[in-house]
Amino acid sequence: MSHEVLEFDVISDRLIEKAERDGAETMWDRKVAMKAPCGFGEKGVCCRHCSMGPCRISPVAGKGAQRGLCGATADTIVARNFARTVAGGAAAHSDHGRDIAHVLYMASEDGNYKVKDVGKLMNLAAEWGVETDGRDTYDIAREVAEIALMEFGKPFGTLRFLERAPEPRKEIWKELGLEARAIDKEIATIMHSTHIGCASDPESILEMTMRASLADGWGGSMIGTELSDILYGTPTARGTEANLGVIEENMVNILLHGHDPSFSEMVVLAAEDPELIQMAKDAGAEGINLVGMCCTGNEVTMRHGVRIAGNFYQQELAVITGAIEAVIVDVQCIFPALAKLADCYHTKFISTSPKAKIDGSIYIEFNEEHALETTKKIVKEAIENYKNRDRSKVYIPQEKNKAVVGYSVETIIQHLDKVVNSHVDEFNTVKPLADVIWAGVIRGAAGVVGCNNPKVKHDKSHITIIKELIKNDIIVVVTGCAAQAAAKAGLLTMEAKELCGRGLKEVCERVGIPPVLHMGSCVDISRILDLVSRVAKLKGLDNSDLPVVGVAPEWMSEKAVAIGTYVVTSGIDTFLGVTPQVTGSERFTDMLTNTIEDKVGAKFFFEEDPNACVEKIIDRIEEKRAKLGI
Amino acid sequence: MSHEVLEFDVISDRLIEKAERDGAETMWDRKVAMKAPCGFGEKGVCCRHCSMGPCRISPVAGKGAQRGLCGATADTIVARNFARTVAGGAAAHSDHGRDIAHVLYMASEDGNYKVKDVGKLMNLAAEWGVETDGRDTYDIAREVAEIALMEFGKPFGTLRFLERAPEPRKEIWKELGLEARAIDKEIATIMHSTHIGCASDPESILEMTMRASLADGWGGSMIGTELSDILYGTPTARGTEANLGVIEENMVNILLHGHDPSFSEMVVLAAEDPELIQMAKDAGAEGINLVGMCCTGNEVTMRHGVRIAGNFYQQELAVITGAIEAVIVDVQCIFPALAKLADCYHTKFISTSPKAKIDGSIYIEFNEEHALETTKKIVKEAIENYKNRDRSKVYIPQEKNKAVVGYSVETIIQHLDKVVNSHVDEFNTVKPLADVIWAGVIRGAAGVVGCNNPKVKHDKSHITIIKELIKNDIIVVVTGCAAQAAAKAGLLTMEAKELCGRGLKEVCERVGIPPVLHMGSCVDISRILDLVSRVAKLKGLDNSDLPVVGVAPEWMSEKAVAIGTYVVTSGIDTFLGVTPQVTGSERFTDMLTNTIEDKVGAKFFFEEDPNACVEKIIDRIEEKRAKLGI
Repeated sequence: MSHEVLEFDVISDRLIEKAERDGAETMWDRKVAMKAPCGFGEKGVCCRHCSMGPCRISPVAGKGAQRGLCGATADTIVARNFARTVAGGAAAHSDHGRDIAHVLYMASEDGNYKVKDVGKLMNLAAEWGVETDGRDTYDIAREVAEIALMEFGKPFGTLRFLERAPEPRKEIWKELGLEARAIDKEIATIMHSTHIGCASDPESILEMTMRASLADGWGGSMIGTELSDILYGTPTARGTEANLGVIEENMVNILLHGHDPSFSEMVVLAAEDPELIQMAKDAGAEGINLVGMCCTGNEVTMRHGVRIAGNFYQQELAVITGAIEAVIVDVQCIFPALAKLADCYHTKFISTSPKAKIDGSIYIEFNEEHALETTKKIVKEAIENYKNRDRSKVYIPQEKNKAVVGYSVETIIQHLDKVVNSHVDEFNTVKPLADVIWAGVIRGAAGVVGCNNPKVKHDKSHITIIKELIKNDIIVVVTGCAAQAAAKAGLLTMEAKELCGRGLKEVCERVGIPPVLHMGSCVDISRILDLVSRVAKLKGLDNSDLPVVGVAPEWMSEKAVAIGTYVVTSGIDTFLGVTPQVTGSERFTDMLTNTIEDKVGAKFFFEEDPNACVEKIIDRIEEKRAKLGI
Repeated sequence: MSHEVLEFDVISDRLIEKAERDGAETMWDRKVAMKAPCGFGEKGVCCRHCSMGPCRISPVAGKGAQRGLCGATADTIVARNFARTVAGGAAAHSDHGRDIAHVLYMASEDGNYKVKDVGKLMNLAAEWGVETDGRDTYDIAREVAEIALMEFGKPFGTLRFLERAPEPRKEIWKELGLEARAIDKEIATIMHSTHIGCASDPESILEMTMRASLADGWGGSMIGTELSDILYGTPTARGTEANLGVIEENMVNILLHGHDPSFSEMVVLAAEDPELIQMAKDAGAEGINLVGMCCTGNEVTMRHGVRIAGNFYQQELAVITGAIEAVIVDVQCIFPALAKLADCYHTKFISTSPKAKIDGSIYIEFNEEHALETTKKIVKEAIENYKNRDRSKVYIPQEKNKAVVGYSVETIIQHLDKVVNSHVDEFNTVKPLADVIWAGVIRGAAGVVGCNNPKVKHDKSHITIIKELIKNDIIVVVTGCAAQAAAKAGLLTMEAKELCGRGLKEVCERVGIPPVLHMGSCVDISRILDLVSRVAKLKGLDNSDLPVVGVAPEWMSEKAVAIGTYVVTSGIDTFLGVTPQVTGSERFTDMLTNTIEDKVGAKFFFEEDPNACVEKIIDRIEEKRAKLGI
């Protein structure tokens, strides 16, 4: 078996060797079995949108099939596949946002779900024109939630949060017809327009796709973030630890994996329940050790400091430690393989969402009406399983790193307030950030986001890019599995300032922040949109004028393609470290990596080599600076 | 070049030979170029839902890749692909229904769009609890339209039209959690749940898919049908003709192709405009000859008797006649190939929908606000093009057949009223239909629907199955391209009674109907649901108790899979003449063709041989009769 992908990471090597001894299958085994991926699929020129096919376009121009049976060209097929990919991603983020809006709708003074950040609720109510004077918080919450829910399905009008963009950006959207309407409608329209015999013009398909992507970034994702903060509190800076070393030898280890904080918040509550902790002790453990993975890991670390066991590619490795009593999951990015893998150990693999029932898992449905009751039951399952742990099969790598997390926009601004010259400037703005960029103390900013992908040496691209960027005085914000990669590498610490260029180091010292700021889960890329837009608005500019970029070095999910598309459509260049499945159409590839800039002032860069990627990012940032004359 | 598929049809042979002479490419050329389709795609075991892949499951059990990189099995991958296929189909139908609801919303006494069937509007208003007393028709229309629009996006509750189903059916849906919520939400949820790392349990994926399919049949499609009738009139029986022979040598021929009656109705109006007819005469033509194709063809033939040029597979052949001045299209089932093909002739290929811009077409955007103005402009384009027709390149096959069309449920009931014994029974019910079925005069009923597909000898399966069914005293209702196949074959005539068994023949004579009833376009399969449900309710039974079946002998589109799924979920067995791309999972195939019956009382049959299909249909109908003791 060839594991050439692993040289970067000794932990994985050791655990994969253990998996082999334990007779457990991993992603790397499956990758070897898969052999070469389909060339047509890789290039995006395979169409299964009707049953006349499947059709696939010959890679040799002028030879073999150049068109599908209906006459669709490679350009059309690639565009349609890309559009549906974005639809899938936007649906995932947004359906998650919808669930949170439903929870806000049912929140009450004496229920499991309460409003924690009343100030944020009031701000949003004001933004949306909801009367607040003399009203009960939960009445207001319900009305805000209803408006949010209507954003998914309202028959008329465009999305409210689009208003948050800088004026020039809104003008561009308006002119191009990119103002997203109801979120679900945009998804349904994509599915319709990519049906056989509908849109074949790749330009129009891309525009529809861009519009749908805005329904994610400025719609479902932003609703998800805002309402999560209202319900569970806006994150503030706090310490945590990251990597598989957070799994404890003598505790009931619960791995929490998935995406929706409405679930994970209740698991956190259950795991802190004194009765259950006592139960764990009675079972011979020292307590309950809840650790997070993927975006749910980010949600609970941002708000509670729950330690991070790892990111996407480590989900199997955590189980292979043999020390996990239960893997508890809700939706998205959960390997169905965990069911079979858990069977090789004592681990209980518990799925909870009707939207994501998993073959071979223990299914305990999570219902928001009985939220805490259910999560307590699930935690009990884990505790009761402690006795079944086979100590001879336990191996916990000791690697872990400290990290500071919790950088919501609000928290970033609070930190910036420390350096405000109160004689001259106001508090509570992003001006200090703009000032240091304009002064050239830091050259620009990069959002490094996204998944892991076995096509790339896991975490290596993330870390290489982040390190090089901060060395070059480019401040980095991170979300998702990229954030967890940074956490594991020790980059989310004050000490990481030593890896920075002189300007950024000074900023870190004066503002008291790490050079790499953990801004949350994947839906929280909406926080990055918010932050960038605030700087643009402050300067009377558009996002596309700013020396900022998005980077997804190791992305793999449809959500990442939706994100990349809304980031570009929001005027921010996006660098992809895994080439999307579009290269079968030169025309569409050129649209994404070139001509889209004429429309929205930003474009995609496909660059699989992390060092080359950094060079391109720096070039682009300096280009923007030159244009600004700074 | 091998055209073995064509032996059934001399017209196609002649036109394909002509195409070769003209240097025009057809679907059959592309089929030859495509060679063997991808075996993984055919079996549904190829996954491109994330960028770790594409992954494909080895067809040899236990050898090669048995799981995708995430661990998804063939069962999961097949189920997810099936789900997204249904999502695509449901989105297409429903987005069409949504557009019609928007048109009803803007209808006005003095605008292009008026309420034609006030009675149907009032019935629907009553059904939906809309106050009608003393209110202006257009106020009522607007409120009904708003409610319809909310069915696409309402945050709470389930779809209103589900209430139309028989009680036992509603119970089944409730018990299984299949009551569809907002239409777009169901589509978005499918896209979410089939995202990487969400649902992997094929049973739950199928259930979600069934629920989404109901959002099509009892949601978007039914809204499309009901509101079309309100706006454009409920179809009544009328004569027409069908096949390429309806194209006229000495007239301005306009081929109308697509789906949305809000567009085609306005084209009909424009083509009847005396000024434009005069303009055509001034151009040397005898007039304007509007002919229809695909579902738009069905819409305008049902309401205006506009003649049918043909069905799906004939869209290129019509152009190859060299006598079409303009092909005018909106959405769905339009070959993008028509753009290149039209260039071989003088034909103008005019696309009109922002949802379906077509590469290489002339784009004249249709906007409901300026509806008639736009369609007049388009018709003018056709007239002006008459002079460019190259007579040396014209060949119009003379084949055509008479047909009677327009059998809405209301019209069927009107016909049934003729045989009501008014001493005993009420008028305006389906009792006479139930009576003849119960008496055994006719054995049962079949809805034959769907597309053409080059995998099947075009129209042959449609015609073989319909003829055999009526011979066996099974009355047939048809929609879509199947209806047009029947029309071309002369089966939509009173004379076709001679092809029937004795019982059905007598019914045709007494009721004064053909044995094959054209019920409309593909969205109008909602009419069939309505009709079947009325019989079930009358008898106090469930749909699944009745000796009725659905058949899609030559389907190709995602819409057809959505239809098949909602028909089965509505309790009606569905026979597919093209095997869907699910055979890579024995488990999922068994679910569709076997175990689904335990849940919903109906199942899929995959049978590619039309004669064997008829045998199975008859067996199944007799089985149902036996159970009823009739």
